[in-house]
Amino acid sequence: MSTHEPVTVIGLGPMGRAMTRSLLDAGHPVTVWNRTAARAEGVVADGATAAATPAEAVAASPLVILSLTDYQAMYDILAAVDGALAGRTLANLSSDTPERTRQAAAWARRHGAELLTGGVMAPAPMVGTDASVVYYSGPADLLERHRAALARIGTPRYLGADPGLAQLMYLAHLDVFLTALSSLMHAAALMGSAGMPAREVLPELMETLTGIPAMLAAGEDVGTLIDAGRHPGDLSTALMMGATADHIVAASQAADLDLTLPRAVQRHYRRVIEDGHGRDNWTRIIDGIRSPR
Amino acid sequence: MSTHEPVTVIGLGPMGRAMTRSLLDAGHPVTVWNRTAARAEGVVADGATAAATPAEAVAASPLVILSLTDYQAMYDILAAVDGALAGRTLANLSSDTPERTRQAAAWARRHGAELLTGGVMAPAPMVGTDASVVYYSGPADLLERHRAALARIGTPRYLGADPGLAQLMYLAHLDVFLTALSSLMHAAALMGSAGMPAREVLPELMETLTGIPAMLAAGEDVGTLIDAGRHPGDLSTALMMGATADHIVAASQAADLDLTLPRAVQRHYRRVIEDGHGRDNWTRIIDGIRSPR
Ligand SMILES: NC(=O)c1ccc[n+]([C@@H]2O[C@H](COP(=O)([O-])OP(=O)(O)OC[C@H]3O[C@@H](n4cnc5c(N)ncnc54)[C@H](OP(=O)(O)O)[C@@H]3O)[C@@H](O)[C@H]2O)c1
Ligand SMILES: NC(=O)c1ccc[n+]([C@@H]2O[C@H](COP(=O)([O-])OP(=O)(O)OC[C@H]3O[C@@H](n4cnc5c(N)ncnc54)[C@H](OP(=O)(O)O)[C@@H]3O)[C@@H](O)[C@H]2O)c1
Repeated sequence: MSTHEPVTVIGLGPMGRAMTRSLLDAGHPVTVWNRTAARAEGVVADGATAAATPAEAVAASPLVILSLTDYQAMYDILAAVDGALAGRTLANLSSDTPERTRQAAAWARRHGAELLTGGVMAPAPMVGTDASVVYYSGPADLLERHRAALARIGTPRYLGADPGLAQLMYLAHLDVFLTALSSLMHAAALMGSAGMPAREVLPELMETLTGIPAMLAAGEDVGTLIDAGRHPGDLSTALMMGATADHIVAASQAADLDLTLPRAVQRHYRRVIEDGHGRDNWTRIIDGIRSPR
Repeated sequence: MSTHEPVTVIGLGPMGRAMTRSLLDAGHPVTVWNRTAARAEGVVADGATAAATPAEAVAASPLVILSLTDYQAMYDILAAVDGALAGRTLANLSSDTPERTRQAAAWARRHGAELLTGGVMAPAPMVGTDASVVYYSGPADLLERHRAALARIGTPRYLGADPGLAQLMYLAHLDVFLTALSSLMHAAALMGSAGMPAREVLPELMETLTGIPAMLAAGEDVGTLIDAGRHPGDLSTALMMGATADHIVAASQAADLDLTLPRAVQRHYRRVIEDGHGRDNWTRIIDGIRSPR
């Protein structure tokens, strides 16, 4: 007999399947449900139990993990379940806005359940490895109660009682992640216009990404300076960075590429220069981001 | 008597000053000139010789390094010099478009000089360290002739005869660099809206940046797949990433932040979904970047 808490996983996209496998590997009995039933086949072969309905899935375990495209999917799935939700912990690890996450916590309470919000900071293949971190917010005791199971997904990092907080932190990371990925594709397209294959150019471009912490480490701590509203321009200036942003837009235009992304960056520098702060450090762009015109 | 080649550095912003110091440290006699003469004081105290005019600066050394905001600055400075340019190697390490870089190579030849184009892949404080790489293009023999001096700035990486090539590679890296920096400031502003200081949040956000190569390393080589036009969506899909891009825009809007950058990213995913490729991997966004509508 297993001493491991039974867990239900609802949503079997790449992430839900990876979570299910990691829980099974650790010895947890796992019940699964997915809108498209065929997607359960692989994890059932690995030892999971397929529930016939969402109600059956929720009834199977005190901890119900949701891994869906957004929070609306949870309502679509659980609307009919109702009574069975009482006493359950819903750990929703899906992406959505902080506001909708807060509304979902209230919705869960109205159904006698409790919501723990999470954001998985790892791609599906890294789930369950040391490289996986999961931000949580909501009632702290929920995380403690289910820590053993949840730790199989990634190392939990608790942020506070506001259910929106883990979501906001997740989105901040994804803001950096998706924007950096878009920049890699844009830069690969730029080099592709000169005949250089992505296979050769991407590893070099990624050196620039990974070099950023070392670059920012020169001089006083950037974060501390930003918090103090200080932007000394003795190592680089917004004028210099802005000129380069202009060159990137012009080179992208000459290569007939999409200009939306480099223009968004260019705009950050133009704003600093318009505001008369061109001799300040590039970090000054945060003012315009905080107070757009 | 020094056996080190004399070098002239024109332009004493943070980068030109760092280059001058690194060359002086290695024992090169360095002559400098800057439009704003006062900016030469520090490096003169360190052993550089200030030229009274650009013509005097160019006459002082066979190798003339230019470190300016853009290529127009070179014309502004060297227009009057003319005759003195004959036989000189101009190593222009300033940012500009590949096209203007090519025009400058022709301009240099008309004045009896030769142009080597370079892009310094390091911030000023890292110049001369092992972490500094400099892309070069133009006549290969120029780089060989002046390699000892140029290697004091960073490790040279030669890309080819087309003078625009080093510039394009520089801009591709800066495309990634500036976009990632903008995303860090945007994400820091997002967390700042919940009261979290940049000092605390930036180090965590940078973990996402440095984790990108490991994340992309799962499965087949991303670059090879892109070159083959293959975008298998078995680990993540454009639909999922696009939903998260939507959540980032909505959360940024709720925090009254600038939306230009997250909207540019969102647009990359919307295009994939409109084109009917939502079930493909996120790398599919490169198609829309290459063929904007
Ligand atoms: N993949 C990753 O690497 C990764 C990394 C970190 C975080 N995440 C997050 O994890 C969550 C899941 O991501 P994912 O990659 O596994 O795939 P996904 O494509 O976003 O999620 C797919 C799951 O949501 C279900 N779904 C969507 N709308 C539904 C609806 N209206 N009703 C019922 N079910 C619905 C799908 O069911 P069907 O199968 O029937 O379509 C499927 O089970 C997302 O919020 C994502 O942001 C993913
Ligand atoms: N700083 C970095 O970390 C870094 C890193 C990599 C590459 N770069 C590149 O290196 C180059 C130099 O950058 P930087 O940071 O040193 O500073 P910068 O602010 O871009 O360049 C300043 C230099 O350009 C001169 N200048 C600009 N317009 C001029 C004109 N019309 N006529 C004469 N001189 C003019 C300035 O003279 P005044 O002093 O008289 O204004 C100053 O010497 C840029 O192309 C930049 O993209 C910089």
